[in-house]
Amino acid sequence: NAGLTDVREAVAGSLSAESGVKLSADHVVMVCGAAGGLNITLKALLDPDEEVIVFSPFFVEYLFYSDNHGGKTVIVPTHEDFSLNFNELRKALSPKTKAVIINSPNNPTGVVYSRAMLTELAEVLRQHTSDTGNPVYLISDDPYKKIVFDGVETPNIMELYENSIYITSHSKDLALPGERIGYVAVHPKCADAESLMSGLIFCNRVLGFVNAPALIQRAVKNVQDVSVDAEMYRKKRDFLYGELTRIGYSVVKPQGAFYLFPKSPIKDEVAFVQKLAEKKVLVVPGRGFGSPGYFRISYCVPDKVLEGSIHGFENAFSEAMK
Amino acid sequence: NAGLTDVREAVAGSLSAESGVKLSADHVVMVCGAAGGLNITLKALLDPDEEVIVFSPFFVEYLFYSDNHGGKTVIVPTHEDFSLNFNELRKALSPKTKAVIINSPNNPTGVVYSRAMLTELAEVLRQHTSDTGNPVYLISDDPYKKIVFDGVETPNIMELYENSIYITSHSKDLALPGERIGYVAVHPKCADAESLMSGLIFCNRVLGFVNAPALIQRAVKNVQDVSVDAEMYRKKRDFLYGELTRIGYSVVKPQGAFYLFPKSPIKDEVAFVQKLAEKKVLVVPGRGFGSPGYFRISYCVPDKVLEGSIHGFENAFSEAMK
Repeated sequence: NAGLTDVREAVAGSLSAESGVKLSADHVVMVCGAAGGLNITLKALLDPDEEVIVFSPFFVEYLFYSDNHGGKTVIVPTHEDFSLNFNELRKALSPKTKAVIINSPNNPTGVVYSRAMLTELAEVLRQHTSDTGNPVYLISDDPYKKIVFDGVETPNIMELYENSIYITSHSKDLALPGERIGYVAVHPKCADAESLMSGLIFCNRVLGFVNAPALIQRAVKNVQDVSVDAEMYRKKRDFLYGELTRIGYSVVKPQGAFYLFPKSPIKDEVAFVQKLAEKKVLVVPGRGFGSPGYFRISYCVPDKVLEGSIHGFENAFSEAMK
Repeated sequence: NAGLTDVREAVAGSLSAESGVKLSADHVVMVCGAAGGLNITLKALLDPDEEVIVFSPFFVEYLFYSDNHGGKTVIVPTHEDFSLNFNELRKALSPKTKAVIINSPNNPTGVVYSRAMLTELAEVLRQHTSDTGNPVYLISDDPYKKIVFDGVETPNIMELYENSIYITSHSKDLALPGERIGYVAVHPKCADAESLMSGLIFCNRVLGFVNAPALIQRAVKNVQDVSVDAEMYRKKRDFLYGELTRIGYSVVKPQGAFYLFPKSPIKDEVAFVQKLAEKKVLVVPGRGFGSPGYFRISYCVPDKVLEGSIHGFENAFSEAMK
């Protein structure tokens, strides 16, 4: 089922206030987390061999989610600062494009897309829709949306684009890792909104999610506007970003989530990640995110661990520079 | 991930005691309910167009689960008393058969498969495996396993067949409807047991379940051998079965779950179900379970509701007999 009505009403109320778009409980499906939400959405949307665009670097499991349901993933590179590259996007759009997935703040880069950038994205997709007659759905997968720094704005995509689907989970913003709770919200003016909603509810059932866990649904109902203290993550970011740039790493300063995505000082980032591992610093190679030559650091760790890692980052860097 | 280690150990211990087969935490994956467990199992097992056998009447969503992952469902009818029909099963087995799903106590009939019947089933599948060289996996989907009456035995399939996968949820036996918690257990001597386990964990992640809800995992750890009081359901069954047979309905007396599956007094059971609805008695047409001419009653309702329904069953029957 779609979830408890009062919980969906609370979500709709919170989303309406945030986006300025009037949503009701009928536009919300409670799900077992954002990954489940993405799967039911792609299963509901995709016909065989239709295409889903993602921007690299991307959360690697996006590749599987489309493949699970007969779709194809088309990867679009971003600029050097990980901002959206609209020329590349235009080249990638085709009559088979069914959906575009964005993720802001982004995993693995921590980059946040600005209002101007999202507005331009909406324009490009609107143009393509009007050129081809096939609506392109914009899926915003944003579990990190409430973890942002420096007063940066994260506009809700519903405000900017009608064919939009907003998906999130509470595992990050309420620090509930391991609990499976999130939701999918469909813009009321989305193409085929009503049949899409029926499709989501049906797919939620037959893919085996059935419903979002009832107990945790009740728990999150009353905390829709609550979030973890992002300040804690900002301090960690500032410390680590400061240290890494001091050492000489090239890294885009992120404005959200809890990841940094530096350039590897040597081309083969897998070798560099191994070198870091020898120094007891654990990071993930960028090719897993579609971006070889980079690596991802998760700084959602205690300060002690973060401070202890600097020595390893420093040694590995100077060895690589030899 | 596969779930919390101590929870999987508790499940493995309970299953080992029940089946006499020594399982460890490495043979158990905690999942978001049995429907999720069936989906990841079929995704892990199936190659395109491979076949999954189910017995009619069956839980209708089995059809979707195979279809979700590129498989085909082959439906095998049962005998008049809903026991397994081995001649029909032998006709249905083919070199493309990858799995057989059983469900005992059965939804919608409430019928329990005896040890003799499951032993014969294992023999038929063993023979087919040795004839074709392709192992047939026996998937036992048994969320009702602890709701049985009259001291009837429900042998765990692991005791009888090596290529077996046992799937259950706690929504029924612990009366936790709406919570998403269950597990998949793989027989240690199952064909490709190790890669199957890896496949289950991988599919659990990429299908979007990610993990079973952590809080409820902890809750069920300590109640593996606890169950709802089946006696309550037995009394309801006895009452309803007694009344229906008195009225004249033809119905197989079930030994488990909380369903009855009577024959419709007229051939068109959808018309009869509508007649019952007019009398405020809600039941489900049998064709939804692959068995037209029957209908399913769920008697998991308060005694008052059950007692109040008899008048409707009686009137609808006598009108149909006119």
